Amino acid sequence: MVKKIHEILEKAQQMEPMTIAVACAQDEEVLLAVEEARSQGIVQAILIGNVEEIISIAEVHSINLRLYTCINVLDIKEAARLAVELVATGKAQILMKGILDTSVILQAALDKEVGLRSGNILSHVAVFDLSSHYHKLLLVTDVAMNIAPDIHIKQQIIENAVEVAKALELINPKVAILCAKEKVDAKMGATIDAAKLQMMNEQGEIKHCIICGPLALDVAVSKASAQLKNINHTVAGDADILVCPTIEAGNILYKCLVFLTDAQSAGVIVGAKAPIVLTSRADSAQTKLNSIALSVLLAGNYA
Amino acid sequence: MVKKIHEILEKAQQMEPMTIAVACAQDEEVLLAVEEARSQGIVQAILIGNVEEIISIAEVHSINLRLYTCINVLDIKEAARLAVELVATGKAQILMKGILDTSVILQAALDKEVGLRSGNILSHVAVFDLSSHYHKLLLVTDVAMNIAPDIHIKQQIIENAVEVAKALELINPKVAILCAKEKVDAKMGATIDAAKLQMMNEQGEIKHCIICGPLALDVAVSKASAQLKNINHTVAGDADILVCPTIEAGNILYKCLVFLTDAQSAGVIVGAKAPIVLTSRADSAQTKLNSIALSVLLAGNYA
Repeated sequence: MVKKIHEILEKAQQMEPMTIAVACAQDEEVLLAVEEARSQGIVQAILIGNVEEIISIAEVHSINLRLYTCINVLDIKEAARLAVELVATGKAQILMKGILDTSVILQAALDKEVGLRSGNILSHVAVFDLSSHYHKLLLVTDVAMNIAPDIHIKQQIIENAVEVAKALELINPKVAILCAKEKVDAKMGATIDAAKLQMMNEQGEIKHCIICGPLALDVAVSKASAQLKNINHTVAGDADILVCPTIEAGNILYKCLVFLTDAQSAGVIVGAKAPIVLTSRADSAQTKLNSIALSVLLAGNYA
Repeated sequence: MVKKIHEILEKAQQMEPMTIAVACAQDEEVLLAVEEARSQGIVQAILIGNVEEIISIAEVHSINLRLYTCINVLDIKEAARLAVELVATGKAQILMKGILDTSVILQAALDKEVGLRSGNILSHVAVFDLSSHYHKLLLVTDVAMNIAPDIHIKQQIIENAVEVAKALELINPKVAILCAKEKVDAKMGATIDAAKLQMMNEQGEIKHCIICGPLALDVAVSKASAQLKNINHTVAGDADILVCPTIEAGNILYKCLVFLTDAQSAGVIVGAKAPIVLTSRADSAQTKLNSIALSVLLAGNYA
């Protein structure tokens, strides 16, 4: 079981390198992240996009492009489509976004003909190492994709996060459905969904995890809080996965951990037939590398 | 301007002690918090409730009850009503919850005859000192009272938080209306409200603060993020007040800061004619003292 974020990279290094297909790779930050992951021995890369621009960036940073496959595709949608096709046909195992709109690459990934649809919705899973503030890795979802998920979407968000847990060798992860309190309250729809999700888990409809909800965040991560509030459940104080009720709650929690703590993190889009890496400019170089390493572990899972 | 949480206590110590009316004071944790605040010279207290039980607790902890006014009221609702009346009639300046349901004391506070109604809704304001992770105090609201506030309630939540900022000598505080992104998105109602609130502020309908929204949390608290996303607004990267879109988002942000960081905090209910202190068992002794000190500063404001 992976307990610290640096173990994600270490585990990825023990595997055969995966191939990552980068759509619109003509971006300095993206190329530096891919080069770092390649030099760490965790990926090989196919760079799709404006090769002239890729060459100029590579020259500035002494990146040896002979170690890459480069495919010149100037049209952005076509670059996205080709990257997806390379993954769909098994020539690459991971899809990565370069300098194009997120919506364009996701549209290509969700294309019904050459796409990477798996039947599940796509969702974002973040993995946090909170150092001394929590005794293990904490997965947070969904902070980026699904705006106001209904209970069926929440089920898929949980299933996607459980896939990430599996890649981290977390068997039967403990899933906390976050709300503002621990009691079902008709005025708070999130509490009703949370209780239903727990019931679906108890009845075997959602498998491979242990779900508890509704829970406020303190009870999910603090045994002392759980005790004070008399919440006696194996998930209380020991959650592996935090499921947020809305994109606002998720995004605020994610940004709080990234920008107001020393937490280290990795992130990946799950739910397609292959992991999708969407790093953002605000991510540190380490976070980008962590995210690629996480996608390597996940791709190993799918293989 | 108060920049660190310990200055809240120091400022309260420089004022004349306020009187705090405690409803159902027969609770160990509450009495210890009040005794600490009294011994620090920031409050005098009227203890309302089961005096026999108050005496037993005081004996165990060597609390000298001759320094207090005690009023024996065994009925819980009546104890709440009397505490509210003492504040409404100026015999106390702060209302504090002892061992009774929050709903009972709030109902008494909102009573149309003897209550403390001011016209505004009640909301919770938390004050955080994030140490090296932020360059000043950060106010977070509403994490406890209003479930899914509409724009009119959000306006009052902002006005209540601005009152707390004023007590901290923060003139014209910078208010970030938190959402999952910076652009108005018809699929995310919170972004529409946020843009309207900013407009209402620009048109002078919401005064004594500078509002910016929609903002994701990173842009609210990080100048680097604001720059990367090309957000050029005086609030970006320098927010004093974070307004959360829903109780779930607020509660999760609050619990994250309290339970997953080293942040120090204080909290108070605002919007009535006097501050209301509702400490929770999960609060540390220091947080309880900070919260009473914050209510003293606020009461000084109302006076």
